[in-house]
Amino acid sequence: MRSIEEIIARQKIEETLARYCNYLDSMTLGDLGQLFTEECVVSFGPNPDLEANGREALITSLARLWRWHRTAHHLCNVVIHFDTTKNATVQSRVHAWHETSDGAEAEIFGTYKDSMVEIDDKWLINTRRMEMNGSRGIFSLPVPAAFRKPPPKNWVKPINLKETT
Amino acid sequence: MRSIEEIIARQKIEETLARYCNYLDSMTLGDLGQLFTEECVVSFGPNPDLEANGREALITSLARLWRWHRTAHHLCNVVIHFDTTKNATVQSRVHAWHETSDGAEAEIFGTYKDSMVEIDDKWLINTRRMEMNGSRGIFSLPVPAAFRKPPPKNWVKPINLKETT
Amino acid sequence: MRSIEEIIARQKIEETLARYCNYLDSMTLGDLGQLFTEECVVSFGPNPDLEANGREALITSLARLWRWHRTAHHLCNVVIHFDTTKNATVQSRVHAWHETSDGAEAEIFGTYKDSMVEIDDKWLINTRRMEMNGSRGIFSLPVPAAFRKPPPKNWVKPINLKETT
Repeated sequence: MRSIEEIIARQKIEETLARYCNYLDSMTLGDLGQLFTEECVVSFGPNPDLEANGREALITSLARLWRWHRTAHHLCNVVIHFDTTKNATVQSRVHAWHETSDGAEAEIFGTYKDSMVEIDDKWLINTRRMEMNGSRGIFSLPVPAAFRKPPPKNWVKPINLKETT
Repeated sequence: MRSIEEIIARQKIEETLARYCNYLDSMTLGDLGQLFTEECVVSFGPNPDLEANGREALITSLARLWRWHRTAHHLCNVVIHFDTTKNATVQSRVHAWHETSDGAEAEIFGTYKDSMVEIDDKWLINTRRMEMNGSRGIFSLPVPAAFRKPPPKNWVKPINLKETT
Repeated sequence: MRSIEEIIARQKIEETLARYCNYLDSMTLGDLGQLFTEECVVSFGPNPDLEANGREALITSLARLWRWHRTAHHLCNVVIHFDTTKNATVQSRVHAWHETSDGAEAEIFGTYKDSMVEIDDKWLINTRRMEMNGSRGIFSLPVPAAFRKPPPKNWVKPINLKETT
């Protein structure tokens, strides 16, 4: 049976992921940095402006979000795998909405792939890699596409459905 | 007081619901099928193309999502009622975004009404029925409307509000 | 270590927040009222039509949502701080979608700032204040803007990025 310690760890991991979104939207980047290990490695894509090595570099890099007038990051679909009692591989999904001061909008439906570690009773993000499931509007950053399995060779579009879930 | 077993069950149920969305977006339908019982009954609407009896039929049916170029399913608002320690009635909400290869979009704000069952320490979906709270774009499937209570006869629009939460 | 009681309280708090959204979308306002204390104070903005003192006033006020044909409220990013074992300060985020009978849409990306209290094994909302992180469409209510820290004086837009996360 799952231990009490694991139950609590799951709650704490979800809270760290939620706080990241909240601090990003309020641009309180000092608080945001405390959610990551000092030596964290974070990549939003293969572009030097989108990668950060270490907490201080991450805070400096995420200052780029001041280019937007307002943002909203909403997190869900958390799936956690414990590698040890103090190390976890965590996947979550984010709906990130951005608006310029001119009212232009950009949205990304993305995946965060994290490794997290428990330090002093807190679950911190040690590595984060972002992938993109979908996007809308003026968003044009080179965030890598999330994996989507292609249809088998013999797959045929259903003729009775125009659109579908 | 709620038992440890129930606390764990709640965490596992939420994870099953999250995994469904993730596997649907990656179209790894074999993994998705493992989240359902072998004899599951799933209905997205009163249309033979939207109904499935059994895990294999479900996998075959959901292959229809390859009609879309990209999708993003984000799950939230989970409410769980335990009928027994191994059976639960679960309601959740999904924001499902779909994009064709031409860039046309369709979104649904939907409700999943599930019965779930614990088998071998896993919480599986035994029956699923989808309802639609809202939609946007080219989505035109006959997903049944979610219940919304009509206003009482004596209800009057507030005159001081143009739009409101 | 976090107590079992606190673990359970966190699950119950999240469920109360989820139920609020679900009842609002189904306009079952009697059920919604049961999620609040009798003497609750709720404010969606500095407008008498957007404020309510007490459960009955809240139910009366939220009847304004019948101005919309359909709505979808999706909740996430829950962060909980316990002031006592029976009192908590809770922040969450909501994606609220609204559609008129003409098909016009309005969306808000908002923050709920709640104080919650445990009464008879249930976690109820005692005070709620809404803030707005973003909006889209015809939404024009005076919901107060959520705090967003301004950039430091020496901040310069990154020249290599057109748009960014």
